[in-house]
Amino acid sequence: MKILVINAGSSSIKYQLYNMKDESVLASGRVERIGTESAIVTHEPAAGPGVREVSEILDHVTAVRRVLDLLLHREHGVVASIAEIEAVGHRVVHGGETFKASVLVDDEVKRRIRDLFDLAPLHNPAAMMGINAVEQNMPNMPQAVVFDTAFHQTMPRHAYLYPIPMALYRRHKIRRYGFHGTSHFYVSERAAEMIGRPIAELKMITCHIGNGASCTAILGGKSIDTSMGLTPLEGLMMGTRSGDIDPAVVPFVMSKEELTLGEVNSMLNKHSGMLAISGFSGDMREIVEAMEDGDRNAKLAFDMFCYRLRKYVGAYAAAMNGLDVLVFTAGIGENSAHVRKAVCEGLTFLGVQLDETANQRHSKDARFISAPDSRVKVLVVPTNEELIIARDTFRLVSERKAAGDSPVSRGQ
Amino acid sequence: MKILVINAGSSSIKYQLYNMKDESVLASGRVERIGTESAIVTHEPAAGPGVREVSEILDHVTAVRRVLDLLLHREHGVVASIAEIEAVGHRVVHGGETFKASVLVDDEVKRRIRDLFDLAPLHNPAAMMGINAVEQNMPNMPQAVVFDTAFHQTMPRHAYLYPIPMALYRRHKIRRYGFHGTSHFYVSERAAEMIGRPIAELKMITCHIGNGASCTAILGGKSIDTSMGLTPLEGLMMGTRSGDIDPAVVPFVMSKEELTLGEVNSMLNKHSGMLAISGFSGDMREIVEAMEDGDRNAKLAFDMFCYRLRKYVGAYAAAMNGLDVLVFTAGIGENSAHVRKAVCEGLTFLGVQLDETANQRHSKDARFISAPDSRVKVLVVPTNEELIIARDTFRLVSERKAAGDSPVSRGQ
Repeated sequence: MKILVINAGSSSIKYQLYNMKDESVLASGRVERIGTESAIVTHEPAAGPGVREVSEILDHVTAVRRVLDLLLHREHGVVASIAEIEAVGHRVVHGGETFKASVLVDDEVKRRIRDLFDLAPLHNPAAMMGINAVEQNMPNMPQAVVFDTAFHQTMPRHAYLYPIPMALYRRHKIRRYGFHGTSHFYVSERAAEMIGRPIAELKMITCHIGNGASCTAILGGKSIDTSMGLTPLEGLMMGTRSGDIDPAVVPFVMSKEELTLGEVNSMLNKHSGMLAISGFSGDMREIVEAMEDGDRNAKLAFDMFCYRLRKYVGAYAAAMNGLDVLVFTAGIGENSAHVRKAVCEGLTFLGVQLDETANQRHSKDARFISAPDSRVKVLVVPTNEELIIARDTFRLVSERKAAGDSPVSRGQ
Repeated sequence: MKILVINAGSSSIKYQLYNMKDESVLASGRVERIGTESAIVTHEPAAGPGVREVSEILDHVTAVRRVLDLLLHREHGVVASIAEIEAVGHRVVHGGETFKASVLVDDEVKRRIRDLFDLAPLHNPAAMMGINAVEQNMPNMPQAVVFDTAFHQTMPRHAYLYPIPMALYRRHKIRRYGFHGTSHFYVSERAAEMIGRPIAELKMITCHIGNGASCTAILGGKSIDTSMGLTPLEGLMMGTRSGDIDPAVVPFVMSKEELTLGEVNSMLNKHSGMLAISGFSGDMREIVEAMEDGDRNAKLAFDMFCYRLRKYVGAYAAAMNGLDVLVFTAGIGENSAHVRKAVCEGLTFLGVQLDETANQRHSKDARFISAPDSRVKVLVVPTNEELIIARDTFRLVSERKAAGDSPVSRGQ
């Protein structure tokens, strides 16, 4: 069975075609700058040469048609007929409180995703465009949606509610949702597997630190707290996002600088974080490079990033009354030995002992980086959100086949 | 030497007269509802009957005059002449980056306090009214100012800077300042004394939890991080203040509810915290009472309060890579065995072992509440900010006397 995974943004589509027999990727690629005369399509089959072309692609429907053309292409294609693709899985950022698991798409599901546009005005409408574009290009193709928030729906009330008037929760559903759920779920399962212990008995903290960054406390396999909140702004310091600040800073800055709501949102999401402190970049690779060249602002940005992450690890250890496993993933987590070292050095009180040689070793594989006698196991686990989307889609479609036509959902 | 300590609010003045020979309080009291025809004056001499009177007091000058009258009163007074009072010490909330220690008041100091009005628009102008009122009633009386922020001026840059555009720090001095500094300083010194170890070698977390609440990481006697920030809104959940939330909640709520800057500030400071979650009170005594009667919202407010405090203890243990001493102080910290128990129960991973009998015992004295073999010492230390103000004032005045007339300040 082949599954197409789609991650649609407002002007882009990323895709992977999975062969579920061995979970291999047959082809992957992306369409960027959708809506312009110079959209860029990049297509990479697992074997053979890739394609890069520039053409006019004005909407998501055309973009998906182009992707299908390439998947079927006589030279660069990887399937002989669209019929080989049995289902499409979509990444959807916000599932609100409605979606606690992945589901197959039907009219009711689409209506509910639309109801959540308010909570993710940039992301959910884009995902919906992806769903509709697939529908128009491949009528009757089974589609599934996998939510970034779903894994965190196990958080208890005392962790997900904010101490603000309850009317705001009832009226506008303002609460902590958390994001990167698919990634936190994937790496936590993979880490437990590598340790060889049932996840049910582990206290784990997963650090998904890329351009966006979040940290999750996972007790017995369930997310009990996570650093992102109503939006992906809360929590850790990120490339261009502030993370936690005094909430009173927002009205203070708005008043002093005469900013609108849109401007203050943009400031906190796009002009803050490591970019604001370093003064030149929100990219950890560039920060570390400049820091090693003696740039003091880069050093400060690095220190703040690691310090704030370290505090979250401490906070979540307190939330679980202990820690067995610490996992690093995503761009920075998988690649920055500097960051992992700086975070772990201050955590010996928890029983974290890094194996500095293992930490420095470059590898694309999941691996231990703690010393053999470290009480807390520390791992680097490359994340794979697309694989979880493919697996969930595969499972949902298989279940529906087996069960007739009744809707089934993943219970996490 | 007798020192008068004054804590002036916008419509109130609290005072204590100290005899510095034995640091005893000769009299204390307060003037409330200043600016009305029915201001209330309460005066309590250490010995003998107290006074409570209602009269027209329209400004701080009149209020201070009334306080002096009562201190000299033939029946309720405690001094024979104003000349017995050698100096007045004031509590000032915000010292910004200007004041790293207590100082004697002169024109330059007054100008600098005025420069900080922007950062504490509710508090600093009130303190200034207190200073001016003393000046008018007692010309040439030496006055000292003691700042809530001063103790936290030892925080390193990576702890006090926010990950937002540096221009905001340069232009408006937006950064973490922290508050309750006098209290955190007092209880940390007292705890080290009780443990009988030099504070220089201790990793300590002090929890000042009253109606306002903050938590400080104190490494070797110096504040290295604290939960309140630019304003006293950040950090822990409080009686009516939210503490930490996703900063994006602020513009989201403003937009959904069409709130002004003033309204959203008021919502977060006066209508949030335990009051918002319980639905009926921001007072921990009432919350615990209702919780024991089975009120589920009260239980939720209690759980959130304790959970958030526990996470801060974990975060600050991570900031210091360990913990030796945990101190509870202020209204809730000194009186709520429930809260202390709920916080400490989840901290056994740090080496915290509560002595439940000691925890339950009511007492007004500083005391240990950890089990004898607890790796982390846990103490309840009643705070005494007024005593620190009296001591600092006494020391500054004595130093000036000894040194001629050159200004001297407390080095913390």
